[in-house]
Amino acid sequence: MRYELYYWPSIQGRGEFVRLALEDAGAAYVDVARTRGGMAAMEHLMGEGKRVPFAPPFLKAGRLLIAQTANILFYLGPRLELAPRSESGRLWLHQLQLTIADWLAEVHDTHHPVGSGLYYEEQKREAKRRAAHFLGSRLPKYLDYFEAAKSSGYVELSLFQMIEGLRYAFPRAMKRQEKRIPNLLRIHDRVSRRPALAAYLASERRIPFNQDGIFRHYPELDGAV
Amino acid sequence: MRYELYYWPSIQGRGEFVRLALEDAGAAYVDVARTRGGMAAMEHLMGEGKRVPFAPPFLKAGRLLIAQTANILFYLGPRLELAPRSESGRLWLHQLQLTIADWLAEVHDTHHPVGSGLYYEEQKREAKRRAAHFLGSRLPKYLDYFEAAKSSGYVELSLFQMIEGLRYAFPRAMKRQEKRIPNLLRIHDRVSRRPALAAYLASERRIPFNQDGIFRHYPELDGAV
Repeated sequence: MRYELYYWPSIQGRGEFVRLALEDAGAAYVDVARTRGGMAAMEHLMGEGKRVPFAPPFLKAGRLLIAQTANILFYLGPRLELAPRSESGRLWLHQLQLTIADWLAEVHDTHHPVGSGLYYEEQKREAKRRAAHFLGSRLPKYLDYFEAAKSSGYVELSLFQMIEGLRYAFPRAMKRQEKRIPNLLRIHDRVSRRPALAAYLASERRIPFNQDGIFRHYPELDGAV
Repeated sequence: MRYELYYWPSIQGRGEFVRLALEDAGAAYVDVARTRGGMAAMEHLMGEGKRVPFAPPFLKAGRLLIAQTANILFYLGPRLELAPRSESGRLWLHQLQLTIADWLAEVHDTHHPVGSGLYYEEQKREAKRRAAHFLGSRLPKYLDYFEAAKSSGYVELSLFQMIEGLRYAFPRAMKRQEKRIPNLLRIHDRVSRRPALAAYLASERRIPFNQDGIFRHYPELDGAV
């Protein structure tokens, strides 16, 4: 199966969680919007209709068109040998992935607490309050939860990405918080050494973190808490 | 199978999306936290550990413990005859349900844009900006999407709940927006007449909307847009 991934071509964003799974498994795939004419193809699939995605990322797998990051990973998991085949095992990983999705949305809202349609500069004051609440209350809660939870497969790849992104966005806060997450750091380091993934991370296919993505580094949000 | 649902006993919240499915299907279930000693049982299952939920709602089904609303509905769907059995049909409904989850989180954040750990009164100014952005930009986008999307099964029950909640929270804004959603209103009305569901809605098991839930009516947020 040759998969087609559709996602914004200039950011890691939510698409990155799917890229990591495809790359780690050595799957054959095209990152369509990064090819010539690919953005038009992506927009075409998002047009109005009865069975279209609400937003990227989405994956074309034969005749299936699957949207929502966690849904895509649920589908890919057993096919890429990144999830067990049992129903209970799949539901558990999916539950963790959906909790990561909630966590990621909260990261996004640290710089966009008023609305995604406005620039950061239009909501800086609100962002400062939200980021302080996130770093002081929500981030430790998520870290403690995943530190204790039994993760595996594609969820470990996603946890790697969360740690990478949080370190980029909140270096000062993370430095303080990393003491509490030895297990998560072990998972992060182990994932980063997986050969296919290490090759991907060193390649040009890995888009660097930048100030248009979900993880953004605004020093004024990385405050003392 | 006698299911056990665990959710906060005094609000509809996310648990209501599961209640609607169980009630519509006439499933045998206990709403545990609303029984004597139930809150303690719920908190016990949320304790630290390798395979515990991050937050309610969660469902006990035999030996399985499933959290995340959309994950629970994904599991229940075919078992309650509220979803097809085919993989493609299940993934499609799940994709829609995950988009409803995103929509619902945005509704929540209209009154809690800074943080869920603070009172509304501590974030009224931010709430006003966020609610205006939500009503002016995000709500029409979601309504247009679901107006055109091919829904069925448990997703229709969830769309009913979204319309009910939005009418409670934003009566003025919804009055203006309902012109654009004839299909959604047909789904809403059809769902409300399903016998088991109508009986549930008229019963004391249906917790009324209130100012502790996700849908809250603050007139100052239901502004002219």
